[in-house]
Amino acid sequence: MASSLSPPKVNMEVHVHNRHKLLKSLRQHLSQSSLPLHGFVLLQGGDEQTRYDTDHLELFRQESYFAYLFGVEEPGFYGAIDIGSGNSILFAPRLPDEYAVWMGKIKSLSHFKEHYMVTTACFTDEIPTVLKQHYQGSGKPLLFLLHGLNTDSNNFSKPAEFQGIGEFDQDLTTLHPILTECRVIKSELEIDLIQFANDISSEAHVEVMRKAKVGMKEYQLESTFLHHTYMYGGCRHCSYTCICATGDNSAVLHYGHAGAPNDKTLEDGDMALLDMGAEYHFYGSDITCSFPINGKFTSDQSLIYNAVLDAHNAVISSMKPGVSWVDMHILAHRVILESLKKGHIVVGNVDDMMDAHLGPVFMPHGLGHFLGIDTHDPGGYPKGLERRKEPGLKALRTARELQEGMVITVEPGCYFIDALLPPAMNNPKTSKFFNQEVISRFNGFGGVRIESDVLVTATGCYNMTKCPREIQEIEAVMAGAPWPVKKTLSSACELAHPKFL
Amino acid sequence: MASSLSPPKVNMEVHVHNRHKLLKSLRQHLSQSSLPLHGFVLLQGGDEQTRYDTDHLELFRQESYFAYLFGVEEPGFYGAIDIGSGNSILFAPRLPDEYAVWMGKIKSLSHFKEHYMVTTACFTDEIPTVLKQHYQGSGKPLLFLLHGLNTDSNNFSKPAEFQGIGEFDQDLTTLHPILTECRVIKSELEIDLIQFANDISSEAHVEVMRKAKVGMKEYQLESTFLHHTYMYGGCRHCSYTCICATGDNSAVLHYGHAGAPNDKTLEDGDMALLDMGAEYHFYGSDITCSFPINGKFTSDQSLIYNAVLDAHNAVISSMKPGVSWVDMHILAHRVILESLKKGHIVVGNVDDMMDAHLGPVFMPHGLGHFLGIDTHDPGGYPKGLERRKEPGLKALRTARELQEGMVITVEPGCYFIDALLPPAMNNPKTSKFFNQEVISRFNGFGGVRIESDVLVTATGCYNMTKCPREIQEIEAVMAGAPWPVKKTLSSACELAHPKFL
Ligand SMILES: [Mn+2]
Ligand SMILES: [Mn+2]
Repeated sequence: MASSLSPPKVNMEVHVHNRHKLLKSLRQHLSQSSLPLHGFVLLQGGDEQTRYDTDHLELFRQESYFAYLFGVEEPGFYGAIDIGSGNSILFAPRLPDEYAVWMGKIKSLSHFKEHYMVTTACFTDEIPTVLKQHYQGSGKPLLFLLHGLNTDSNNFSKPAEFQGIGEFDQDLTTLHPILTECRVIKSELEIDLIQFANDISSEAHVEVMRKAKVGMKEYQLESTFLHHTYMYGGCRHCSYTCICATGDNSAVLHYGHAGAPNDKTLEDGDMALLDMGAEYHFYGSDITCSFPINGKFTSDQSLIYNAVLDAHNAVISSMKPGVSWVDMHILAHRVILESLKKGHIVVGNVDDMMDAHLGPVFMPHGLGHFLGIDTHDPGGYPKGLERRKEPGLKALRTARELQEGMVITVEPGCYFIDALLPPAMNNPKTSKFFNQEVISRFNGFGGVRIESDVLVTATGCYNMTKCPREIQEIEAVMAGAPWPVKKTLSSACELAHPKFL
Repeated sequence: MASSLSPPKVNMEVHVHNRHKLLKSLRQHLSQSSLPLHGFVLLQGGDEQTRYDTDHLELFRQESYFAYLFGVEEPGFYGAIDIGSGNSILFAPRLPDEYAVWMGKIKSLSHFKEHYMVTTACFTDEIPTVLKQHYQGSGKPLLFLLHGLNTDSNNFSKPAEFQGIGEFDQDLTTLHPILTECRVIKSELEIDLIQFANDISSEAHVEVMRKAKVGMKEYQLESTFLHHTYMYGGCRHCSYTCICATGDNSAVLHYGHAGAPNDKTLEDGDMALLDMGAEYHFYGSDITCSFPINGKFTSDQSLIYNAVLDAHNAVISSMKPGVSWVDMHILAHRVILESLKKGHIVVGNVDDMMDAHLGPVFMPHGLGHFLGIDTHDPGGYPKGLERRKEPGLKALRTARELQEGMVITVEPGCYFIDALLPPAMNNPKTSKFFNQEVISRFNGFGGVRIESDVLVTATGCYNMTKCPREIQEIEAVMAGAPWPVKKTLSSACELAHPKFL
């Protein structure tokens, strides 16, 4: 198939809005701390990188905080926001004449000013002069620089550096938590972009389901997905490296990297677990579909698949502002264990299983994470909110309560992992729960994950991902039925986001 | 179309051969300098990189010198060659238990030993111990580390670092020139890999020619190419970011990067200049095709296209061991200027034009570069060979004489570049050569480049690239004719490489 979609024109107002939001939060913070409303937010955009010692240039992708505030696609920029006036200033690199021969027409400052909707555009070598001109306070002008911890990577963002920075006072602590918090709650315009990334990626997943055949290689599924999202969606980047795991590879949570490069042959009887999401104008998607390569679920595959789907649906049905994400994670574990009990894979009391931390044996990762300009969007653990220590809960990328405007992935999974299951089956505290005979049937099964991107609305949530999820839907689509099917919306949750009514 | 090709099994002997070649050269050098034949070549492989402060992992691609000697796909390795015994030792990272849950089965040392065909495999934390055990000399063991200039990037390779390196003597000057020189002359097994990258990329170029239609976006040509080479060739990486330039963009030599991202709409009457090449097991291809989007050359398009094709063919007909690459570059300029004179674009004596450096006005880049594990493979300017200063010649990535086993791109081009042409037309030294009236017809034309990857053989050369090149071939293929066509080989050059008879 071709596609019913085409890339929408990007509305650069999204970044104007992001800057206003930051300005408002920052001014509020300064007022509350009885601090003057001057100084500048100053961010340094990313630079192009060469590979090792060579002149091989990696395709540039903007640093995410800079992309959030300024939306600039080109490398080598700086951006400032004048806290007093609210003016925004972009600083573009001054390019040498030969740039025009090798890299293309040198864009004018007025082009950047208009295209990126900022108040002023100057050159990066003018930063100190321009900032001093604009400064309305007394003494050395104050720069609010970005420095803080990313709680997923444990890396720190690098504050801006430029020649002449010594002539400025620097604040390294105020900006990061405030800007990060801005990114947690998505605006309508941001949601539009995440929705398009979801639409084209959902469609591409359906295309992959239809094309998947015994005898193909996993990377051919990746190639099919990449092609569909770029060809029809204009998505040059993915949110992350595609995970195309089939058979026992589907129990490897982050399969697909250079050391495990999607190179297995698809076999009859294998499940596929495909975690792939495209990015559109910096905003991403993160979607996992699981299905049998041959198009028909066995009863064991149905058992595990429905265990995960029930957890996915139970969580989405429960999501609304004020709900604790930790509770959602626990709910997913409970629903999965209940299904496994019904399937005679585990035996005993589910409360006892929960107390014995049986959940993370089958689902060692967190239930989901914020999604936006980064796949693991920041803000999961603002200051004061500690990561939990318990098995399973410690893997959560956030322990927050849901708020309207958050976009979070719901990605329960159930895996038969060689490194986890035998130790738990031999552990005296947990061995009693396992039905050894039934579990042996799942040797080499791998795992199932179902992942959707969900927007928290005022009264509930909205699932932005539109893939076939019910077993009969998947089997029908794989047999050639159209998707999406015309149907009566069955879930109240799907009706919750007014934009989509 | 699908494809007549499929990815060949990689013969890891290619790296065994590369190591033997280095060992032979290095021992010869040490003997000639009356130095003892002990110590170790020690290289550090590349590490995975996260994007800025986030946990977003870029898809890992091995550092090229390390790939040459060891062929290792995974990050975090070191490799050593014992100069005395000739033994090769791979050092793999010691992975934590949870790697098995997140990243996949932890591969054993014996797996690495067998798969990468080395004498021994150990862990990276054993480097000092293992090297000292193997050392046969007296005193501190000597390490030959990689440190030297890449003459394309002007960057230096970073010598290996590890804990305990202080217990070793270090030589930073010997290895780089010798190893670089090894990479310049390709073995049969290396040529096989470059040939496959060429075969699948040539086929993908033909696929793109057939699919290109007025109204499409340039990036849709890129997507088509990427899909074909990955889907049917298993090529996960390209040698470089695809250049999909149409209309006046085709005069931008390195179009396609984030600041000029292949986003123009294809228009009737436009020429396309597509510079795209896939990489297979580290070895690359670098191919440019130029053709009219609508499938029929105008007379002006034919004029410029044939000027470039004549230069391309003249160079390939002249290439053989002993020929100077500078002379080939000058030949290309001369052939292009002669054609432009026949087309009344320039007027006067071609010798005078050459003396006035008119060549680089139309073709400001070098004629070609070595190709291998890097697109701009190193070794173009070994010590003692200086870069020429003249316009045009200074852009050459090598000024060497051709030798059997070199693989070099032949990529003449002719462009109408706004940043170069008007200044030359106004320059009193060159203005007389331009026919202003005729040149005005080429406003917005862009440019043409034809690029093939050529192997120097004992008596001539062999063109590894198999794209339609004659105008009638391109028009026929774009109209649906099969490719390759069965034909009598017309060029003696094509017969020169015995492997392909
Ligand atoms: Mn996810
Ligand atoms: Mn080239």
